[in-house]
Parts: sequence; structure tokens; C-alpha cells
Amino acid sequence: MNILDVIAHRRDKVPHLRDELSFLANGAANGSIPDYQLSAWLMAAYLNPLSEEETAWLTLAMAESGERIDLTGLPKPWVDKHSTGGVGDKTTIALLPVLAACGLTVVKMSGRGLGITGGTVDKLASIPGFRLDLTPDEMKAQAGRIGLALTGQSPNLAPADKAFYALRDVTATISSIPLIVSSILSKKIAGGAEVILIDVKCGAGAFMRTRQDAEELATWLRKIGTLCGLQVTAELSDMDQPLGAAVGNALEVREAFEVLRGGIMPMPSQRFLELVRRIAVEALTVSGKLAEKEALVAVEQSLMTGKALAKAREWVQAQGGDPRVVDEPNRLPHAPVVSTVSYEGPTGSVQRVDAAEIGQLVVDMGGGRKAKSDEIDPSVGVVLDVSVGMQVDSGQQVATIHAATKAMADGAAERILKALTVF
Amino acid sequence: MNILDVIAHRRDKVPHLRDELSFLANGAANGSIPDYQLSAWLMAAYLNPLSEEETAWLTLAMAESGERIDLTGLPKPWVDKHSTGGVGDKTTIALLPVLAACGLTVVKMSGRGLGITGGTVDKLASIPGFRLDLTPDEMKAQAGRIGLALTGQSPNLAPADKAFYALRDVTATISSIPLIVSSILSKKIAGGAEVILIDVKCGAGAFMRTRQDAEELATWLRKIGTLCGLQVTAELSDMDQPLGAAVGNALEVREAFEVLRGGIMPMPSQRFLELVRRIAVEALTVSGKLAEKEALVAVEQSLMTGKALAKAREWVQAQGGDPRVVDEPNRLPHAPVVSTVSYEGPTGSVQRVDAAEIGQLVVDMGGGRKAKSDEIDPSVGVVLDVSVGMQVDSGQQVATIHAATKAMADGAAERILKALTVF
Repeated sequence: MNILDVIAHRRDKVPHLRDELSFLANGAANGSIPDYQLSAWLMAAYLNPLSEEETAWLTLAMAESGERIDLTGLPKPWVDKHSTGGVGDKTTIALLPVLAACGLTVVKMSGRGLGITGGTVDKLASIPGFRLDLTPDEMKAQAGRIGLALTGQSPNLAPADKAFYALRDVTATISSIPLIVSSILSKKIAGGAEVILIDVKCGAGAFMRTRQDAEELATWLRKIGTLCGLQVTAELSDMDQPLGAAVGNALEVREAFEVLRGGIMPMPSQRFLELVRRIAVEALTVSGKLAEKEALVAVEQSLMTGKALAKAREWVQAQGGDPRVVDEPNRLPHAPVVSTVSYEGPTGSVQRVDAAEIGQLVVDMGGGRKAKSDEIDPSVGVVLDVSVGMQVDSGQQVATIHAATKAMADGAAERILKALTVF
Repeated sequence: MNILDVIAHRRDKVPHLRDELSFLANGAANGSIPDYQLSAWLMAAYLNPLSEEETAWLTLAMAESGERIDLTGLPKPWVDKHSTGGVGDKTTIALLPVLAACGLTVVKMSGRGLGITGGTVDKLASIPGFRLDLTPDEMKAQAGRIGLALTGQSPNLAPADKAFYALRDVTATISSIPLIVSSILSKKIAGGAEVILIDVKCGAGAFMRTRQDAEELATWLRKIGTLCGLQVTAELSDMDQPLGAAVGNALEVREAFEVLRGGIMPMPSQRFLELVRRIAVEALTVSGKLAEKEALVAVEQSLMTGKALAKAREWVQAQGGDPRVVDEPNRLPHAPVVSTVSYEGPTGSVQRVDAAEIGQLVVDMGGGRKAKSDEIDPSVGVVLDVSVGMQVDSGQQVATIHAATKAMADGAAERILKALTVF
């Protein structure tokens, strides 16, 4: 097979044969097709999008382009969860212990953050000692012992996706639905999951800004997932305002464990816990493990009895972290300057908390990356006391800032107030 | 400026600013834009073609991406000639001495052959000692002394084109008219010419197979040339049958000098000389040097008086070659096996001489390259005695084969007869 023919077919909208897409994925994975040819194909595929069938073939070929985690022997269902990324999205960290506490097997690969949407790997890296470089064998063994395991992206799993993704990032070919779908699903298939829960974020702080784009992506994820033999759910969730109270790596880990601990919690965290509950129930029902009513009960019980929290401790310990952080959040990195922000103005209702602006603020404070090689300060960030729909009075505290310097905290306060719309 | 924006603009059909195209050409020339980004842009430009204005800007930016030959001080007009390539196309070798003999200044960069269309550089390289690596300064000095100079492609002239062309060849983005036009004209502008004569080949043995494609290319060449401030002619010429009698490097050099020598010549060579005359007259008239009638006379005189032939001797000598080859063609490399091919069949008229098949035959005999690094055997090739419209009888000689071995010659004879259609 000749790569020039494969490129020319995409260029001329000649449908690809399945073999062509395998050839392409393997060539990307093993480096036998040079970058400049892959990127010509990617641009052709951006402008002449792949059909559903072609996307499914590409997805499977990418999944087969490297090692695969084989979960045979572990209790089914084998579940994975994916978010398309948003500001303050720490869902995975709270959700996985709930799922494992409910008897599911969860094996997950997570990414680093880039831009305003944080990455689970960066968040968990703020836990002292927490390993994010588990091998496929370690993943399987840990999932067998405690029901869950999470690692950073492994170069050995779906290496074709790694090659494609790196190129898409630098060739303006990111926002193609068939390419996004094959990237997401190929990693999940290589990771061994059979049931995949996808949280499609939609709004100012997400990759998909409009409801229409997000719906289209969700529809494609479901269709291609089915063509690939998976059980896939893909539901939209709002990302116009940040998810939960905390934005910033260690602060988000703290919030994730707090919602598992239960008790009285601020309104933004309640909204976050709602999403965790919803996805957990979805996982239990879609996988056929429980009917909806029982699933609701099981999730609630895992929270009320402390089973989910206990699973979080087991998880942190299993991956080499200090399990005391689950109950003693002060053991997480903390910023030297902590200050509060108060609302000044007429009493009103919060109409908007601009997720994009809060996300960018935390990146600017050092909590995210502007370039791939940037170091992250895990301690900095913002904790919001308000969310859309809450009433605020003049003088009321609306946020706490965790910053490296006083000057940064002062600048942040101003930007937080600007990000709020009240009337 | 950011290359990602430039790629995204092309991708989304947002018109390029002139600065964007300069940024792109300079980045391609100096290597600061990596290949994978250039090839993403090239595919986007293939699928969303550049406008005429954008093509002119790109052409000028590519011309300005490296050194330029400045012909200031040499007699005007400064003329260059280009062919889009065909089988047996040795026009440059006969034409340049005619133009210089008529008082024009001709400075030309030529390419190597690839595929069935030969390259002038390969043909002239068959002359013992002939240098094809003249520097810009040497080019200018020689053109000042004798009125003409020719060199192989210099890495310093239009380096952006060199980078783009190498990538287009391996990313299925060759056949885009705006990219073809900018590639041709940028090199001409960098070479210093103001009057450019383009011979657009059309037919089985050419890059443009249909009259419609060739017409479109010619129209674009004229338009963009004018936008770039050049005087450009672009006329179609037939490439369904090989041009002239000889196909093969040394054999074509021999034929080119033979037509300058004048006298009785076989029909195929007469057809070739017709084209040389036509382009020479075009050069003299378009440049404003002479009116058409005087131009016809001047060209004819340069041939009849031996002035063109004398210029050819000067030229070969000036570039380090043995000038005796002009009059004594046996000094050129010659093949060990020479055999003739005779037609067997009912008397009829030649309907077709398949240029693509004859071109491929000579490549297969070692006279052209299959891969860029292949060595060429300058001595091999075919000399045809017939062209379309001639009558042939059974037993009549139709070609002479010059081959490295008897077996090759026998195989070639069969293919030549198959390439002829007689009825």
C-alpha cells in the first residue's frame, strides 16, 4: 500500500478501504509514515470528513496500533469515563471511588491539562507520592485488588492517537468530529473498557461552545462507539460556569474528597456532586448491573456509609500516595497567600460566572500550562462561594484566592469580580 | 504572526493577508516552519485554492525568499523560457542560442527530469565537461559576455519553492494550479527575467493531459505573471506524440544542434524546429524588440547564417563543455548497441505515436530516473523516423534504438511498434 494513494483518496473523497486506515494508524504508530504525510492526510480529513464507517475503522485501527490492557478475569462490567474537558472538572477523582465502591471495575487513562481546561493527571499529581505512570500490568493488578486504577497516558497504548494528536495540535486540525471521536474512543478501547461514559462539556469554559456542536459530538460518540462494539453513553453537561467550587489542582482534589465525605456543602459543590451521582447511576444502569432505582440507592449508600471515601483512601495508597490527604486536606500543597473576595454592589442574583475567564485566571496564576513544557504550581487557584442563581448582597464573600504572591492575589480578585454578572 | 492562524485561514477560506504569505514563504525557505505544518497548509491550499491575488503574493514572496540574480547593466530584454515538460522536449537547447543570436539576454535555471518527462539539465549533462552549477555571479557574467547562461536549480534561488516542491511531491498536492503557477514563476522572477515564454505541453506525454486543463494553466500563468509585473506568454503545444525525432539525453542534444545546422531534416525534426521558431518569434515580439515580420526574418537569418550554431558553440565552451560536440555529435556518449525497427503491416497513415509509452520505454532503458537518486545513462534512447500523419509501408524503418544491451534493444523494438497506431 502507498501512503500517497491514501492521501489522494481522502483529498478526492474516495472512500477509504478498511486496510488503508489500518495502514495509516500503524504507520503513525511505528513512525514509518513521516509527519508531513500524516499532516497532509489530517488536513484532507478535516476538510473532507470521514464517514461513520471510516471513523469506526480508524478508531479500531488506532486502538490496535499498540499494547492493549486485557481485563479478562476481572469482574465485569469494565467501565471507563471520559470528559471532553472543562474548568474545575474534577469529576473523575470523586466518581471513580464511587463506581468501585458499587462493584464496578474501572481502569482509566487520563491526560494532562492544556489551556484553560485542567487535566486529571495534573490534579492527582498534587497528592504527594501519587504515581501516574502505572504500566498496563500494574493497572490490571491494582484494578483486580481494589476495583480501580488510573494512569497518565502511556506511550504504548494507542500510539497512533499520540502521533495524530501531537500533529493535530500544531496543524489546525483539532476540531474535526470524526478525528475527535476516534481519538477518544481508541484510547478507551486500548484501555480495556467495554462500558464508556462520556461527559460532553458545553459552554464558555469548554471545547464545544455551542449546544449544537456538543450534541453533534455526543451523537457521533454514541454511533461510533456502537459500531466499535462498545456500550457508550454521551451526555451533555453545562460548562458556562466552572464545575463545583474549586478551580486549581490541589484545591480540586480537596473538593473531590470533600463531596465524598458528605455533610453540609456549599452550593457550587452540591452542583458538582449532582453530576457525579448522575454519571455513577448511568454507569450502573447502562452496564446492566442495576436497574435505575437500585442504582440510585447503591450510589447514595456508597456516599452515606463512607464506602466511597474508604475506596478513595485505598486508591491513593495503592498508587503510592499519602492516603491521609483524603481526610486531612492540609497535607496537600497550599499557597502562601490566601485572601477573600467580596462582592460590592446592589443585591442581585448571579446570572453568570464566566468559566473561560476563571480558567484563564488560574492558568495565569501558574496553575495551568501555556506551553506543553511549563511547570505547574499545584497549590494556586480559586474557590468560588457562588454559582449561577444564587443571591448576593453587598459585602458578601464570593471567592477565596490561593496565590503565590500578594500582587497575584490582588490582580486575581479584580478578575474574579469581573467574571461575575449580577443583577 | 502564528503559523497556526495561517493554516486555519486557508482551511476556513479566510483570504490570506500578503504578510501571511511572506511569513509562509520565508518560513519554508529558512526552515523555521516545520514540514508537517507546511504540508498541512499545502493540503488546505489544494482543497481551498488560492485566489489570483493570493497566488501573485505567494509567487513574489517565494521569489524573494532567497538570492536573486540582478541583470542590471545587461542589454534588455531579459528573457527566460519554461516548458511544463514533455517527452523529447529539447526545445531549450536549440532555442537559447537562437534568442542570444537575435540579441536577447537569456538567463535560465533548468530542472532535472523525473518520470517520463526529461529534464534539460540531464540532457546538457551528456556534453563532456558541461557545467550546470553556475553561481548567480557566473550566470550574470556569462550572459553579459555571450548573451546566454543556463544552470541547474540553485538552492539559493527561490528556496521556498524548493521546500514546497519537495513536500508537494510526497503529499499528493502537486496538481494544484495556483501552486504550480507560483512554483514556475517564482523561480523565473528570482532568476532575473522580465519576459517569460511558457510552453504548456498538453497530451498523453505531458503533465496536463487534457486541453481544458492546459488552457486553464496557461490562463493562470498569464494572469499571475501580469499581476507580478512580468511579460508572460503561455501557449499550448501538442505532447500526444514525442517532440522531434530523438528521445534520450545525448540523442536529444544531437538533434537540437542538428536543427540549428539546418539543411534537409526528417519530418519529426521539422516539427520540432517549427516550435523553436514560434517561441523565438514570440520572444522577440512580446519583449517589444521587433515587430512580427522582422522577428520572423531575424530568427530565420540566425539559422541560415549559422549565427545560432556559432552561439551554441560559444555557449558550450563558456560553460566548460567541449564545443566540438556541436558539429561532431559522435563526441557525445553513444550506446554500444544500435539497431533499427521496421514497420510490418499494411500501408497506412500514422495515427498516433504514444508519447507516454516512448517516454517510459526510455526511462526503462536507463535514460531517465524512477527514483530521485537514480543514475542516468546519457547514451540510450530512441530516434523516431515517423510522426503523426506520415505514410508508412511494410518493411519501412520507423525508429533506431540506442541501447546498453542486445536484449534491451529487442524489448524496445517491440514496445515501439506497439506505441505506433497505423491505419
